[in-house]
Amino acid sequence: MESSVTAVAPEGIPAKERPIASGADYVASLRGRDLKVYYLGEHVAEPVDHPVIRPSVNAVARTYDLANEEPDLATAWSPLAGQRVNRFLHIATSAEDVVAQNRMQRRLGQLTGTCFQRCVGMDAINALYSLTYDIDHAHGSGYHARFLEFLVRMQRANLTLGGAMTDPKGDRGKPPSAQSDPDMFTHVVERRADGVVVRGAKMHQTGCVNSHWILMMPGTRLRETEKDYAIAAAIPVDAPGLTYIYGRQSCDTRALESGGIDLGNARFAGQEAMILIDDVFVPWEHVFLDGETDFAAELVDRFTAYHRRSYVCKTGLGDVLIGAAALIADYNGVASASHVKDKLIEMTHLNETIYGAGLAASHESHATAAGNYQPDDLLANVCKHNVTRFPYEMARLAQDLAGGLAATMPSERDLANPETGEKLKKYLKGRDGVSAEDRARAVRLIENMTLGRNAVGYLTESLHGAGSPQAQRIQIARRMKIEEKKKLAKDLAGIGGGTP
Amino acid sequence: MESSVTAVAPEGIPAKERPIASGADYVASLRGRDLKVYYLGEHVAEPVDHPVIRPSVNAVARTYDLANEEPDLATAWSPLAGQRVNRFLHIATSAEDVVAQNRMQRRLGQLTGTCFQRCVGMDAINALYSLTYDIDHAHGSGYHARFLEFLVRMQRANLTLGGAMTDPKGDRGKPPSAQSDPDMFTHVVERRADGVVVRGAKMHQTGCVNSHWILMMPGTRLRETEKDYAIAAAIPVDAPGLTYIYGRQSCDTRALESGGIDLGNARFAGQEAMILIDDVFVPWEHVFLDGETDFAAELVDRFTAYHRRSYVCKTGLGDVLIGAAALIADYNGVASASHVKDKLIEMTHLNETIYGAGLAASHESHATAAGNYQPDDLLANVCKHNVTRFPYEMARLAQDLAGGLAATMPSERDLANPETGEKLKKYLKGRDGVSAEDRARAVRLIENMTLGRNAVGYLTESLHGAGSPQAQRIQIARRMKIEEKKKLAKDLAGIGGGTP
Amino acid sequence: MESSVTAVAPEGIPAKERPIASGADYVASLRGRDLKVYYLGEHVAEPVDHPVIRPSVNAVARTYDLANEEPDLATAWSPLAGQRVNRFLHIATSAEDVVAQNRMQRRLGQLTGTCFQRCVGMDAINALYSLTYDIDHAHGSGYHARFLEFLVRMQRANLTLGGAMTDPKGDRGKPPSAQSDPDMFTHVVERRADGVVVRGAKMHQTGCVNSHWILMMPGTRLRETEKDYAIAAAIPVDAPGLTYIYGRQSCDTRALESGGIDLGNARFAGQEAMILIDDVFVPWEHVFLDGETDFAAELVDRFTAYHRRSYVCKTGLGDVLIGAAALIADYNGVASASHVKDKLIEMTHLNETIYGAGLAASHESHATAAGNYQPDDLLANVCKHNVTRFPYEMARLAQDLAGGLAATMPSERDLANPETGEKLKKYLKGRDGVSAEDRARAVRLIENMTLGRNAVGYLTESLHGAGSPQAQRIQIARRMKIEEKKKLAKDLAGIGGGTP
Amino acid sequence: MESSVTAVAPEGIPAKERPIASGADYVASLRGRDLKVYYLGEHVAEPVDHPVIRPSVNAVARTYDLANEEPDLATAWSPLAGQRVNRFLHIATSAEDVVAQNRMQRRLGQLTGTCFQRCVGMDAINALYSLTYDIDHAHGSGYHARFLEFLVRMQRANLTLGGAMTDPKGDRGKPPSAQSDPDMFTHVVERRADGVVVRGAKMHQTGCVNSHWILMMPGTRLRETEKDYAIAAAIPVDAPGLTYIYGRQSCDTRALESGGIDLGNARFAGQEAMILIDDVFVPWEHVFLDGETDFAAELVDRFTAYHRRSYVCKTGLGDVLIGAAALIADYNGVASASHVKDKLIEMTHLNETIYGAGLAASHESHATAAGNYQPDDLLANVCKHNVTRFPYEMARLAQDLAGGLAATMPSERDLANPETGEKLKKYLKGRDGVSAEDRARAVRLIENMTLGRNAVGYLTESLHGAGSPQAQRIQIARRMKIEEKKKLAKDLAGIGGGTP
Repeated sequence: MESSVTAVAPEGIPAKERPIASGADYVASLRGRDLKVYYLGEHVAEPVDHPVIRPSVNAVARTYDLANEEPDLATAWSPLAGQRVNRFLHIATSAEDVVAQNRMQRRLGQLTGTCFQRCVGMDAINALYSLTYDIDHAHGSGYHARFLEFLVRMQRANLTLGGAMTDPKGDRGKPPSAQSDPDMFTHVVERRADGVVVRGAKMHQTGCVNSHWILMMPGTRLRETEKDYAIAAAIPVDAPGLTYIYGRQSCDTRALESGGIDLGNARFAGQEAMILIDDVFVPWEHVFLDGETDFAAELVDRFTAYHRRSYVCKTGLGDVLIGAAALIADYNGVASASHVKDKLIEMTHLNETIYGAGLAASHESHATAAGNYQPDDLLANVCKHNVTRFPYEMARLAQDLAGGLAATMPSERDLANPETGEKLKKYLKGRDGVSAEDRARAVRLIENMTLGRNAVGYLTESLHGAGSPQAQRIQIARRMKIEEKKKLAKDLAGIGGGTP
Repeated sequence: MESSVTAVAPEGIPAKERPIASGADYVASLRGRDLKVYYLGEHVAEPVDHPVIRPSVNAVARTYDLANEEPDLATAWSPLAGQRVNRFLHIATSAEDVVAQNRMQRRLGQLTGTCFQRCVGMDAINALYSLTYDIDHAHGSGYHARFLEFLVRMQRANLTLGGAMTDPKGDRGKPPSAQSDPDMFTHVVERRADGVVVRGAKMHQTGCVNSHWILMMPGTRLRETEKDYAIAAAIPVDAPGLTYIYGRQSCDTRALESGGIDLGNARFAGQEAMILIDDVFVPWEHVFLDGETDFAAELVDRFTAYHRRSYVCKTGLGDVLIGAAALIADYNGVASASHVKDKLIEMTHLNETIYGAGLAASHESHATAAGNYQPDDLLANVCKHNVTRFPYEMARLAQDLAGGLAATMPSERDLANPETGEKLKKYLKGRDGVSAEDRARAVRLIENMTLGRNAVGYLTESLHGAGSPQAQRIQIARRMKIEEKKKLAKDLAGIGGGTP
Repeated sequence: MESSVTAVAPEGIPAKERPIASGADYVASLRGRDLKVYYLGEHVAEPVDHPVIRPSVNAVARTYDLANEEPDLATAWSPLAGQRVNRFLHIATSAEDVVAQNRMQRRLGQLTGTCFQRCVGMDAINALYSLTYDIDHAHGSGYHARFLEFLVRMQRANLTLGGAMTDPKGDRGKPPSAQSDPDMFTHVVERRADGVVVRGAKMHQTGCVNSHWILMMPGTRLRETEKDYAIAAAIPVDAPGLTYIYGRQSCDTRALESGGIDLGNARFAGQEAMILIDDVFVPWEHVFLDGETDFAAELVDRFTAYHRRSYVCKTGLGDVLIGAAALIADYNGVASASHVKDKLIEMTHLNETIYGAGLAASHESHATAAGNYQPDDLLANVCKHNVTRFPYEMARLAQDLAGGLAATMPSERDLANPETGEKLKKYLKGRDGVSAEDRARAVRLIENMTLGRNAVGYLTESLHGAGSPQAQRIQIARRMKIEEKKKLAKDLAGIGGGTP
Repeated sequence: MESSVTAVAPEGIPAKERPIASGADYVASLRGRDLKVYYLGEHVAEPVDHPVIRPSVNAVARTYDLANEEPDLATAWSPLAGQRVNRFLHIATSAEDVVAQNRMQRRLGQLTGTCFQRCVGMDAINALYSLTYDIDHAHGSGYHARFLEFLVRMQRANLTLGGAMTDPKGDRGKPPSAQSDPDMFTHVVERRADGVVVRGAKMHQTGCVNSHWILMMPGTRLRETEKDYAIAAAIPVDAPGLTYIYGRQSCDTRALESGGIDLGNARFAGQEAMILIDDVFVPWEHVFLDGETDFAAELVDRFTAYHRRSYVCKTGLGDVLIGAAALIADYNGVASASHVKDKLIEMTHLNETIYGAGLAASHESHATAAGNYQPDDLLANVCKHNVTRFPYEMARLAQDLAGGLAATMPSERDLANPETGEKLKKYLKGRDGVSAEDRARAVRLIENMTLGRNAVGYLTESLHGAGSPQAQRIQIARRMKIEEKKKLAKDLAGIGGGTP
């Protein structure tokens, strides 16, 4: 019999790393870490209790609760730890394992309507698993064992790992070594007997303030002379030298107001922060790449092959948006209009097209030398590339069905105001039996996902997360086997092989 | 010599209607009107001074200033008033006049980056001009003279007219007379010797709180039994019985914060409010349609023919967005990348496609029986239908070029915070010579137009203003002359005429 | 050890049904059948030798040869027959089996550049396998055993099965029983002790003249009163009463000319014919549905779930088209132009998006009560729906890269004409080293696939095969679980469950 | 009073140049010219009587007849000739004149369903009118007067002028002077006292064999060293040294068969030929550019500004296609299905979007220094760029509505064959009252325009005529005033002017 996640609590593990057994446990684990977090120009004393930050904590907490509610979906048996672990901490050892990630991701997208922030970490450990193995074989290093030790610790403690890849980059036309300021890409500034000292910054970090550890990785192909930029390492979120600047996003401060309707989705949100890395020390045991520039691009490739098909999570958000669009159409009395039904069908078609490519990438996974399973790179890029397009069209269709009210709705406080509330409730109701308040909630949810706070998670992140559109096109070009295809054409057209 | 707008100040006009000669004059004219305006559950004492409302006042003020800066563009000689008048108050007496509206609209879109709110009024007076003429001929009424008298008064005083068309509608599957609540479409509840009493509400009203008068019109085809719903009239914005609930929009409250960067466009914004019409009395001299149900649909058609090609204003906003996208690409050091240039070309192509259809609709205007010029209905609908699509794709492309920073940028206050500012400025700068602040401004402008406050003006309004997409499709169907086209096909295919 | 296909030749099987062991065998098996085939108003004495028909025979022959060349790809172990059988005759007993069909289909699309015509039969036997099982359980009939007997016979003899589903339909606004002419849907006109007599016609039949047997099935949902239309049966292609009218297609008669360049793809083509069914007798042993109207729609659903994801074959054709486009760009000296590369990437992206959805539908197959595997219906429909769109855009992009020459190229005979050939060869060559003839071949292949003969297979069939676009939209609507999605939205928006 | 076209027959004009007064006259004028025309490897004795070529002659004849039927539409008063002339020979002296070209073009597209081939000549004379004027001013040459003399001769004789611009180009990555073979761009090989000798070839020439004169022009920007390539001249179609290779197109040889149904459009077709220019002598009086390399790109720009908005002709073809799609839907009994209506609306929307941009380009014409009117370059390019996209989507939608029959229809001869005709007519009829033959005609017209012969005119020409898509993108980039747009963005974002 496998032990359940909640049963795991081996003695001897330090209190701080006692296994997290629920969403509530997870929230508690984040408290009191004395992080340097800034938002709107102010230091945030306790991020967990900040109304703007809390919804992102709730989203991660939902991943822990799902593991208890649906263990088949959200946990897996880890031969490394010898126990069931949260799927976000699991190394995929079969194609079905890789597919299971997608199923879990879609479900969490449905449950939270936003980014639940744990995929970067999951995809990073899966990429590092095989990469460290291959580096060791190429360079005789000992990264793999070191990484496994770290990973099993995480699995047993059931911690949340964030990833950190995107550097500030400065002039995007230039490589790290040609920047005016050498810090525009994160790099090692000192090597000591016990570890390395790292300096730089990471941009657009999803789910870092509410993680326990961050896996820092290079984000670009490196030249042989750029050894100091070839650094991958695990760093605790509360490491000295780390500062987090919480990104300000559309409609973020509505969370500071009373009431909940105007938020659209009051419980859940994503999280994006910038991390300043100010000469942070990392002991060797947490360093998984140091100077092997020849593996930097490979790390990016392996990570993005996982991460680009992880974006099927957006089909879960898409399910919510389709539902919201159907709901408001129903409330407006036009659920049976042919053009309304047709728009819902189109939204579904686009959503499932994304899902199809993502699932296919996962099903078509192959075993690595290290033994874990790596998704199909071409299909993963195709999946993500559709994610950079279809949610925008779906958002447009949802706004179409929502009507102008999505942008002109009076505030919740006007509905509550005795001077105006009665009249507003009279005029804002939809078909018979639909209250103005329910109509407002439906409309605000669509605003939330297409213009408001979770539009960052549904649209901007769909565009830029795991690489901007052009990054996928470059990768598709690399995988499209154009010479083989030219050969097929020549064979059928009757063209001999002798073309120069 | 024609007298200039500023010279017009005929004696005998009441102080309140002294001609407005500049943007500053206009702003002053709005003060002290004791309007019942509510926003976020609170009564707004002086809308002009409310930080959230003021940018919409500024946008209208810009239309007055443009009239002084470029009189050929933004004023016209009115034979009715015997003087040059602001083009927004002008009845188009030639196709070139109709085209000139488009040129002015694009320019104002470029200057404000948002909806400048005066087109509804302009389009409404142009529609009512010919409609009142035709009703008189059909019914022997005297609306046209009454309307001209009102109009000349507006022209001479240089006032801002808003329009009010969209009713709450309740169950959209039912006509006005079949609603559970008869007030779901605005209607006459009492006819007196001196005028009518009107009740109902109007939704999504652009530029009403900062107008002087509102032209209320029916928004739908009416049955013969729905005479009370066939009401068009002019009402002063401060008429007793009118209440304005200011719509809450994405990122609106950033205007309440200090600083300006996070606003993206600190000076200008649109305005959408809901108007509660609580038994408002309108004297006969301001009533331009009352009970002629046979002309309700015609009024909608004529108004929308103007208004749907008025949406070329969005190409002015498009110019700003293209510029912002080019700017951030330049700041990032990738201005010469082929995919970047290609995206700017695509944005331009889409933008000009909208402009082409709008201009064509205006150029192809025809004279009405009343003598003014009415745009081509089919092309006007085609213009607007493209507006419901292309700005969304342009927004996506702009966000693509902006990078993830459009959604993860730290706030202005973090840049200003001594604890974090220096490091942020170090890491957030772009290519050499580009400051973090300028980069933030460019990125925030793109956020403003695609997710933030002016996304309402650039996207939601593009979708729903002047009728949602399906409204244009219905009108295109009515104008597409399908039987003539079938005849063309039969002639070429050699099919005889006798098909049943 | 499993016996290979070629080894199978058990004694006792009638000569006519000796197992076919190669493409050449297959071609031989088609000869001398005395079929009633008409083309361009003339009876075709021997279809195998007709230059217009032969390329379609070659395409099917290629499926037999592939089974020898790549047995893992194109054959499978059939527990029913107790031997390896051609995959087109195999009942999928695992999800991997269903996926393997897709891999084989893509490969054959690459090898032939056209429709190879055997998928309908494969998909029909897989649908009938589970359907006959379920009918038997519902109605106590004995169809399943009867069907298995027939199927094993086909497997052992290695025959080609066509399918026949689409009826003439007459007035598409009316069901079978409301047509003026009862024959507009194929139906039973007589029931005898030994079998049934069938009358009607089937339209757009892919690969019938070159099949050995046809599986006739109803193509629509039926009412209880339409029992005579609920007929599924196997009929030998040379059954008395069957007449085949070969469809005339774009550029078909180029096959009657000398030379090969102008054909584009001289070896392979699809086949579409209309089948007149003139009181054809079918013995009971070949009847698999007779009067069970409640299973007609289910048969259509199961068949289309297979068949709509079978359209991944078009990604094989897409590979050829991408290759041809890359080839002509290379020949023209612009292979490295950024817009050229970008168009090839876009074509690949669209092609792989189709493949992704199809593969996903297959991987997500589930076991039926009968034990075989049925693809995911929603994803299969999504796959096909993309097939109705993307190949058209890919064709446009290929024509873009081909240049105007794709439509203005002089004929092969002009190249060969001593009066004009030398000059044409001088002016029609591309970059140095590329002959005019090779350039012509590349351009003609693109013409062939986008305007010419195989445009039927690549475009028209993509649009209408396995159901026209609207058919997929209806099915997507049925599978989109809109109430579940509304529930997700309500949960996040905070809307209680009590909405009427 | 202006004299009508038919009245013009001044004495003293050589017989060969007697004014053409009708389509019949025009056809007669083409006979007996002893042209060297080749098609399918054979010399064509009399092109006028060749069944494949004749439909293209008919299309041009239609332009002459329209001039008689609708003189306001298809003729104009020429101050140069002092008489009304065919609009295709008219220099536009007002924006309305430029617009009138578009109206005529759409009408002829409706009447012929194909390319009527006279626009290149019309656009070329309009471009040369102002260009020769400007060259004279820059270089003191005398081209303008020379050109006017030629032009008036054409106007009075009412001849058809073709244009010839596109060179073979060889390696598209290299300019004319860098080609291995100097003849890959047409050039002057000898200059004599009485004129020049020209060598090379021109590709994809629309309407040359059925023109009277050809205006040869350079097709690309030239370097100063490429003077011999800077040659523009008028050449009679029957000049010694010219050879025409008639392009072979999809379904061309159906015109050689008996019957008419299978042709789809039996009367009209386009024409594309390749012209070999084998040391052709041109006297100085017909030379309008010789060596002024600085004006080569300008000539291309001016010509394409006219020609790219001339592609509104395709909206006339679009009208036919929409009509055919509506017709077949009607014949099939589904005219009132919501998805059918929606597709017709979408087709109309796309068609009118093209028309809008084209009309706008014409309306926005500006006067040149020479006094004629030149269309807006940006809008003209936008018009054409939409033409490279929308007809393909319209073709897809038409094929959707046509059903599979568009590719599987039996031939006309099968309908006529006594052995098969009766049954085919029984099964191929549509809703009650619609004959199989009419249904076949409707379906074949759609095939003709989307896959068959006129697909070249409707699709391939839409893509490549007047420049391939990338040519428009380059021109849009040149006209998009990106720095002005960046300035607009900076102003609104509050960015100072000092960015490097």
